[in-house]
Amino acid sequence: MIAEILSTGDEICLGTVIDSNSAHIALSLDEIGIRVTRHNCVGDDMGELAEILSEIGSRADIAVITGGLGPTIDDLSAAAAAKAVGVDLQLDHDAVKSIESYFAKFSRKMSRSDVKQAMLPVGASPILNTAGTAPGFIFKIGRCRCYFLPGVPREMEKMISQSVVPDILIFQGKPPDDISLRKELSVFGLPEALVDEKLTGFESLFPNVKLGMLARFPVITVKMTGTGKDRVRLADEIEKAVNWSAEKLGDKVFSKDGRSMEGEIAFILYKNKATVGVAESCTGGLISHLLTNVAGSSDYFLFSGVTYSNDAKQTVLGVSEETLQAYGAVSEETVKEMAEGARRVSGATFGLATSGIAGPSGGTVEKPVGTVCIGISTKDTTVAYTFNSPFKERLSNKQIFAICALDLLRKQLLIKDNK
Amino acid sequence: MIAEILSTGDEICLGTVIDSNSAHIALSLDEIGIRVTRHNCVGDDMGELAEILSEIGSRADIAVITGGLGPTIDDLSAAAAAKAVGVDLQLDHDAVKSIESYFAKFSRKMSRSDVKQAMLPVGASPILNTAGTAPGFIFKIGRCRCYFLPGVPREMEKMISQSVVPDILIFQGKPPDDISLRKELSVFGLPEALVDEKLTGFESLFPNVKLGMLARFPVITVKMTGTGKDRVRLADEIEKAVNWSAEKLGDKVFSKDGRSMEGEIAFILYKNKATVGVAESCTGGLISHLLTNVAGSSDYFLFSGVTYSNDAKQTVLGVSEETLQAYGAVSEETVKEMAEGARRVSGATFGLATSGIAGPSGGTVEKPVGTVCIGISTKDTTVAYTFNSPFKERLSNKQIFAICALDLLRKQLLIKDNK
Repeated sequence: MIAEILSTGDEICLGTVIDSNSAHIALSLDEIGIRVTRHNCVGDDMGELAEILSEIGSRADIAVITGGLGPTIDDLSAAAAAKAVGVDLQLDHDAVKSIESYFAKFSRKMSRSDVKQAMLPVGASPILNTAGTAPGFIFKIGRCRCYFLPGVPREMEKMISQSVVPDILIFQGKPPDDISLRKELSVFGLPEALVDEKLTGFESLFPNVKLGMLARFPVITVKMTGTGKDRVRLADEIEKAVNWSAEKLGDKVFSKDGRSMEGEIAFILYKNKATVGVAESCTGGLISHLLTNVAGSSDYFLFSGVTYSNDAKQTVLGVSEETLQAYGAVSEETVKEMAEGARRVSGATFGLATSGIAGPSGGTVEKPVGTVCIGISTKDTTVAYTFNSPFKERLSNKQIFAICALDLLRKQLLIKDNK
Repeated sequence: MIAEILSTGDEICLGTVIDSNSAHIALSLDEIGIRVTRHNCVGDDMGELAEILSEIGSRADIAVITGGLGPTIDDLSAAAAAKAVGVDLQLDHDAVKSIESYFAKFSRKMSRSDVKQAMLPVGASPILNTAGTAPGFIFKIGRCRCYFLPGVPREMEKMISQSVVPDILIFQGKPPDDISLRKELSVFGLPEALVDEKLTGFESLFPNVKLGMLARFPVITVKMTGTGKDRVRLADEIEKAVNWSAEKLGDKVFSKDGRSMEGEIAFILYKNKATVGVAESCTGGLISHLLTNVAGSSDYFLFSGVTYSNDAKQTVLGVSEETLQAYGAVSEETVKEMAEGARRVSGATFGLATSGIAGPSGGTVEKPVGTVCIGISTKDTTVAYTFNSPFKERLSNKQIFAICALDLLRKQLLIKDNK
């Protein structure tokens, strides 16, 4: 089954709007086992539109086309579809009813220009739009079953789930032959090239599993997609592939379920009924922001003191002036006292603290931009580590520092966990 | 001149990543007078890649291709380009130097797999990448001059402005006749459709200025691009267009220079030698994270207490137990005490506080998900406001709450500013 997506509209083609519709459509089709092979986009131009629709009609089995169904003169999709096949447009009475019933909700009547939206190519069948005025339609071009939908994300998304997906399932007449299983490993602390190198030999060991990698700085997701006909054998092969890869990548793997770092921390803290208090200097609130992105985080995240000034480090966290003067704000001694302060102030099981130089300025010869000290305080002990990021850029460093700190906390939690 | 864009990568084709590169490239080309006619996207598949490159080679005069230049096995762009033309790959020594000089910055050496990135099709010329390891390259396929760039936005954007645009201008044989000037308004607090409605009539008043809109939740950037031959007249028309639009949009415009909200706050605080202390509940560190993304923020950002628990609100910020019991954590009374506490603890000129219900759960009939109270404390007074976001989703609410709080601080700062 070859599936394609076509986005239409000058605003997307010229770049003033980022196309998020195509990603939504691709994910929705992937969920029912259909892999999209190609995305296309053209502007509001009759020639371009008719041409690309003909091409898609000769290449694909199904296609989802968004945009160009509205009432204005630059809405050309229905006319272009008719032109690609060589038929006329005609008023579709079901489409008229769809528009009328939408307006009725707001006690409004159709205007003359709205009627244009019910002019469909001869042979098309309308798709109801309950969230807006422009109906969609299903229309065969060449060998391809084409679903024309409005470009407004809210309307398009509803129509995908309510009409397009059910129609495709009926059209297929049966579930897809191949079963598709997916697993993800989350990795931190290795560059993409090295992850790839460490997984050399994967293809020959696991011939039915496709290996992919997605770098979302500073985390790399290793994706394994298995395709086959025998679910049990496939699940077994993918399980072995996951374990083999996890062994090769060692403690750089922080989740075998594709969790985010903050999701993994949430999982472990929750399981252990543990809580955390944070003290952030160079990460500037990013650790707290990440932790609180997880719903339910108020169960284990109690407090973070974003102490940018030395004054705040002393007043809020109780870091001693002597330590700050003797070792400086970016030192293992200072982050230890910050971590202890965060734990004491919040009453949490764990205290986590960062102090470093995110850049672009502020570095010295001994402590260059990219230096970060991380402290962790528990009931029994307080430890600190120093790391160096190769980056000179502020945002990259904040991100790498935050994930690095959370990864240390994760490792500390696993030690507690194993006791 | 026919121009196309091709994005490559399973993550985009399958929809797990939204393609924002293509919009950036289309806008960059539009600036030098080149309209992109088509966007294309295929996954990491050698057959698909080679086929679409051949098609583009027969259709377009120039094309920008992103992704697939890295060191891993699913990086196939160079091999697919070679296949489309029927040539081999060979080690390019300038490309090796580009990779080596990037690694030298971090005192690291190339690994074996990094060398793959210097294997270019015979006849290609490399494009330097100063922000990452994978060099790009220029390669003729059919009649089309193709620019292959990495998919990492930061790297790709640099290479577009530093190498691709200059090369296209040389390739065209002359600088474009038309001058292009651009201005941006940053808008918060209006939906896109309403911004559009308020600017009705723009086209007829300013015929040489093209209006565009870019929604990056929750901020909308109104883009105005003027094209013409007379720089002085064009600058005058675009200036008038900016002022006319700013008047129509009123105090929803927070920057006439396209600044981010945190950039605008930084600008005003810095100009006024003022400082800020923050107390965050529902925003969970996001306000601090945004403020500290600006380089030099330690000059005006002193402290943020991310007080998720009521205990921390009392211990760190001095919120009274009576207030918490009588009015609850999400109340104007509580955020006032939080804002005063943040100002007192940090010694800052301004105190800013948030408390609300980001969701997805935790709402009540009186205080549904989306409710946020924001407090601002100055030397003279403390005020509080309540807002309701229509969203039920945690991350959207954190973002809208944070920008809303910063916008109130901005308005407060402008009052002080005018005194």
